Amino acid sequence: MSTPAPAEIGMPLDEVDTPALLLDLDVFERNMDKLAKATAASGIRLRPHAKTHKCPSIARAQIARGAVGVCCQKVGEAEAMVAGGVQDVYVSNEIVGRSKLERLAALAKQATISLAVDNADNVAQIEAAAAKFDARINVYVEIAAGMRRCGVDPGPEAVALARAVKAAPHLHFAGLQAYHGSAQHIRGFDDRRKAIDVAAEAAVTTRDLLRQASIDCPLITGAGTGTFRFEMGSGIWGELQCGSYVFMDADYGRNLDQGGKPGGEFEHSLFVWATVMSRPVRERAVLDVGLKGVATDCGMPLLDGVANVTYERASDDHGVLKVGDTNHPLAVGDKIKLIPGHCDPTVNLYDWYVGIRNNRVEALWPITARGMLR
Amino acid sequence: MSTPAPAEIGMPLDEVDTPALLLDLDVFERNMDKLAKATAASGIRLRPHAKTHKCPSIARAQIARGAVGVCCQKVGEAEAMVAGGVQDVYVSNEIVGRSKLERLAALAKQATISLAVDNADNVAQIEAAAAKFDARINVYVEIAAGMRRCGVDPGPEAVALARAVKAAPHLHFAGLQAYHGSAQHIRGFDDRRKAIDVAAEAAVTTRDLLRQASIDCPLITGAGTGTFRFEMGSGIWGELQCGSYVFMDADYGRNLDQGGKPGGEFEHSLFVWATVMSRPVRERAVLDVGLKGVATDCGMPLLDGVANVTYERASDDHGVLKVGDTNHPLAVGDKIKLIPGHCDPTVNLYDWYVGIRNNRVEALWPITARGMLR
Repeated sequence: MSTPAPAEIGMPLDEVDTPALLLDLDVFERNMDKLAKATAASGIRLRPHAKTHKCPSIARAQIARGAVGVCCQKVGEAEAMVAGGVQDVYVSNEIVGRSKLERLAALAKQATISLAVDNADNVAQIEAAAAKFDARINVYVEIAAGMRRCGVDPGPEAVALARAVKAAPHLHFAGLQAYHGSAQHIRGFDDRRKAIDVAAEAAVTTRDLLRQASIDCPLITGAGTGTFRFEMGSGIWGELQCGSYVFMDADYGRNLDQGGKPGGEFEHSLFVWATVMSRPVRERAVLDVGLKGVATDCGMPLLDGVANVTYERASDDHGVLKVGDTNHPLAVGDKIKLIPGHCDPTVNLYDWYVGIRNNRVEALWPITARGMLR
Repeated sequence: MSTPAPAEIGMPLDEVDTPALLLDLDVFERNMDKLAKATAASGIRLRPHAKTHKCPSIARAQIARGAVGVCCQKVGEAEAMVAGGVQDVYVSNEIVGRSKLERLAALAKQATISLAVDNADNVAQIEAAAAKFDARINVYVEIAAGMRRCGVDPGPEAVALARAVKAAPHLHFAGLQAYHGSAQHIRGFDDRRKAIDVAAEAAVTTRDLLRQASIDCPLITGAGTGTFRFEMGSGIWGELQCGSYVFMDADYGRNLDQGGKPGGEFEHSLFVWATVMSRPVRERAVLDVGLKGVATDCGMPLLDGVANVTYERASDDHGVLKVGDTNHPLAVGDKIKLIPGHCDPTVNLYDWYVGIRNNRVEALWPITARGMLR
């Protein structure tokens, strides 16, 4: 059962019921334009990560600005993207098990499908699924690029995997997945750059070993919103996978730029619209948005445009605000905007984006990959 | 768009794809029977909290064992419960705004509906909505019972609110909401008891003031899985609102009993079914369950039946395991059960319970109140 839409097209923002996921369309479009322009100028490909937004309407807007397609983490996300008109999807993740791989192979009959691999048995499973549907799947070998998660060590094991992929009749060796996820949130500019230097060395080492083995490496793909300038300038990566840049969350806002200032180059476009539901004492207000309405894994949300008030703690359905010396009345019924600490898991709590322009609802976009965990 | 069911009835557990939310039906029924028996013996009413399970199939199973109805936190949850056959729903929370209150009033034409209040203007709004639909709504005055969230201070303000409710033609003053949420997770037995002593004093003080004002207080309602034995034994509360007892999460498992042992009196029935998707090095395995598949606000999930392996960190779609000296191979493709740190927000990530008995799928229950934030 999907939840009903929280608004109607044309409705003033003030009338939109809460909790709701708001998208400031002007800011959102500026963010998309900015990265599209930067990647076009550098000659590098952009394949934004759809795990962030889970919404084909947004994927199509990215593709309309030059993106070659999208990344996903789950087969269900890829299915939702293809169903929503996306023709080129890279599942930048290991996919294990017959059921999921056959779904992916079937999807590859409808669209261009790629995925990542870090295990030789898995290559055989992917080939079996692709053969069953007579489908062709592009495969990237994921190398460990510094974040201690998936991926084989850069070296002979990666070469052996690439060779196994090349030997599989229905698979195409597409290159290397080299993504340093944990580097995205390193605060210091130089520290982030050093982390990407390590990832770059891993990628180059492996590419050189592939060359020595007479295996061409068509592409190295990776990067995120926190580090893409480094990958883009490296001459090593040919494709960027940034996701959060469309929204910018509070956590990315804490990253420092080269001058030591926080904020980064994108603006907050994603907000959770909340109502003050209780105001028991002067120092405390309670919002109708708690753990089920905003992700707290990267810290509590920030209040947009309300000074000296902090979102102190979340329970399932309540957010408790600590109210300092503020001009905002925070009266019961008042609505405010929260900036999520982490946009990806926040989006996954909602079924709809409420797109706002000039304080009016202009778009209602279903988040069709919401909850697509398999 | 709701996600497809992750299994078929009759399927062996091993074939159920991951991530999926598993319910061990034998344990789940034992948990329900245990609390039903305890409340029946004490003569106290049980109104389990449906914010935990968000599923009318579970609500009906609780009611079949003697529960008088369920609690909810959101109007959308109440709508899902009534649509699923529940005839008596208490929204144990403040509901603000015309749109939500009119939905609640309309629902009160189909079922017995109650809600909580801590603000005089809100009483007038509830009356207006009820009048518009010529509906009758039961109203509890929420008092601050120790958790520093919603609720008026025990005292004259509570009496004034009760008087306002009594004066409203379509509202019925049903009693006091006295719930100490943060006490549920205080580890020490005596410390939890002391916290409930404070809540009890708040409730008794207010009830006595109501009596002095010639206002009868029909019921005091509250309590949760961590403290219900205290409320039940107090002679003050007439209704318990326990929710998590049906599932028992890892965090409740860390509460200490009177003897100083952790665990409490209920067993874990709820699990997240996960697959090892990568095994890059001996010390590390990666699961296909991350922040979007299990709540981490009360700590990382535990592994069921796998010793010396810990779920170390979660990213959006990955769970990184630290592998110590274990007999479990944790090979790519192996499936394991995770015990969520916090059941309520974990359930809210899924659309289906996969009910398991004797290692076979016996039930597929839609989580129809999933995402019902409004």
